[in-house]
Amino acid sequence: MKRTFLEDDIAPLATGAWILGTGGGGSPYVSALNMRELCRSGHSVEVIDAGDLDDDDLVAVVSGMGAPLVGQERLRDPVLLGRAVTAMEDYLGQSFRAVMNLEIGGGNAFASFLAAAATGKPVVDADAMGRAYPEAQMTSFAIGGLTMYPLSLVDVRDNEVIVTKAASWKWMERISRRVCTEVGSTAATCKAPRTGREVRQWGIHGTVTQAIALGRAVQKARAAHADPIEAVLAHAGGVALFKGKVVDVDRVTSGGFLRGKAYVEGLGDDRGTRLEMGFQNEWAIAMRDGVAIGMTPDLLCLLDTVSGEAIGTETVRYGQRVNLIALPAPQILKTPAGLEAVGPRAFGYDLDYKSVFS
Amino acid sequence: MKRTFLEDDIAPLATGAWILGTGGGGSPYVSALNMRELCRSGHSVEVIDAGDLDDDDLVAVVSGMGAPLVGQERLRDPVLLGRAVTAMEDYLGQSFRAVMNLEIGGGNAFASFLAAAATGKPVVDADAMGRAYPEAQMTSFAIGGLTMYPLSLVDVRDNEVIVTKAASWKWMERISRRVCTEVGSTAATCKAPRTGREVRQWGIHGTVTQAIALGRAVQKARAAHADPIEAVLAHAGGVALFKGKVVDVDRVTSGGFLRGKAYVEGLGDDRGTRLEMGFQNEWAIAMRDGVAIGMTPDLLCLLDTVSGEAIGTETVRYGQRVNLIALPAPQILKTPAGLEAVGPRAFGYDLDYKSVFS
Repeated sequence: MKRTFLEDDIAPLATGAWILGTGGGGSPYVSALNMRELCRSGHSVEVIDAGDLDDDDLVAVVSGMGAPLVGQERLRDPVLLGRAVTAMEDYLGQSFRAVMNLEIGGGNAFASFLAAAATGKPVVDADAMGRAYPEAQMTSFAIGGLTMYPLSLVDVRDNEVIVTKAASWKWMERISRRVCTEVGSTAATCKAPRTGREVRQWGIHGTVTQAIALGRAVQKARAAHADPIEAVLAHAGGVALFKGKVVDVDRVTSGGFLRGKAYVEGLGDDRGTRLEMGFQNEWAIAMRDGVAIGMTPDLLCLLDTVSGEAIGTETVRYGQRVNLIALPAPQILKTPAGLEAVGPRAFGYDLDYKSVFS
Repeated sequence: MKRTFLEDDIAPLATGAWILGTGGGGSPYVSALNMRELCRSGHSVEVIDAGDLDDDDLVAVVSGMGAPLVGQERLRDPVLLGRAVTAMEDYLGQSFRAVMNLEIGGGNAFASFLAAAATGKPVVDADAMGRAYPEAQMTSFAIGGLTMYPLSLVDVRDNEVIVTKAASWKWMERISRRVCTEVGSTAATCKAPRTGREVRQWGIHGTVTQAIALGRAVQKARAAHADPIEAVLAHAGGVALFKGKVVDVDRVTSGGFLRGKAYVEGLGDDRGTRLEMGFQNEWAIAMRDGVAIGMTPDLLCLLDTVSGEAIGTETVRYGQRVNLIALPAPQILKTPAGLEAVGPRAFGYDLDYKSVFS
């Protein structure tokens, strides 16, 4: 089924993607600015389903790469994302049928739309994370054992690199991250091309539509002066885990990532208890008084108590009133291969995955 | 004219290339070991002249890249260099007619021979420096304004990167250096492919033959118990600049380069004076009592007083008896564009180039 992405979809996509970003992926609101300009200047983007792809169609998986704070200063750029796609087409000697997001969470939710506007190709309603994750090997395509190369990376100066082979997903991450850092910690990438068959089998489907609908649910609750957090929980089948006030943040940028902990003192029913949330770009684990109450791959979302707006790991700060909720993870992330890639141990926590939803 | 490179040519090539390396490029003796194995196992390499190339022949310009000390532990590897060449052929969809050295100075003198043995292609008797230099933009091809991309880089783990575009020679250097560092500071590269016409116009010709002949002159002098340094001067038209004893070395590895100064106290006619030699991988400048007596692009060669063996910037040490000599630079390095790329100011010395030979 084909439909057109409209200017009216931009704000809900930003709100929904920011929640699904579970603290990471960078704020989508800055990318939304460029998207609004494109819509207003007459660009229109079609959205298609994974099921609309032929087996042998080629799909470009696009994402902005870099440090979130740099991404706040230099907006995701349709020309640059488009160049990453055409660089890959030049390398392959083949054209892409469509583009899709690497991750629906955070600012990269708009990467496929910006690339689509630049190239005239439709967006596939799918991604490879169902959320945001910090590393290249943390995707459903990696979990499916698909090839991780080639990858194209372009910067604003006309540098263009193709990683034509990588010894592993980790090596792909290391090499592309280094190049990205050297060109200023902001670049556009086109990941390993996927066939229509691969996207149907290993993609996480419908996530663009889900993000927009989630954002709409929040907007609707706000307009009706209802509780937006209740709306998120009801809409997405989530669970409320904790409510409180941020009392401390311990944050460091290391090895190209934002790592650290945020501490929340309980309010209401949680008064007298203390929450500790560990993160690597995204929220990875939540401990209440030393006991894990939520962990990756369940989506841990820290939301502003009043507005329901997502709070990022780079913007969380002392004094914020927050609600921690969990949303269900895509099924593939909960398989043994999925947990190896994105379970608590992949983030350094020596714990077996226990879902909030099981 | 075509001739065969023989096992007997290996030792003279190593000795000659080490002198032409002007302190850098890494010792060629370790690369010579792999070349000897290849010769003994029946590999034979043909050497052709640049004049033998057709206008549209494609030539692969190969070199090992990385930190000299890592290159002492992991010998330049024919399989790896061959993979850099075939990776580029795969990318181009075209075959190379021949391979050539990026730099004749130091260990990279053997890069083309190792790649030739691996791929069955002949070696062009030419290079792009006539010596060794530390950075990508310091070549006759860069001085000629030729394109700097694409470049292929492969490592021992099956990682393979193509820099398909670069905004400048400096950017090519920065990006490829970063990837090289990430994969362990040792990699094989195939630089931007050159046509036969480009090699004829912008290559520095005959440098393989020159290096072998220079090495033979040293060997012959040693065998005759004559002064090998006199032999180098006579053979290559050089000038003796200083004689003394190394009294101090101030050396630091920074930004992927070996930088520093070596201090030599005069002996014989130079007694009572002091020499200070500045280097960035290669010897760049020589000051006697504060006055420049030799500078890049003239080749500054520090040779062991007794053996005539070259002394590298990474091996120079207290107590060595040394002779500093200068050999003439290839003409192209002395043009205005050449001096901009490799003159004293390119190494941070605010001096006009004054040749020992003018």
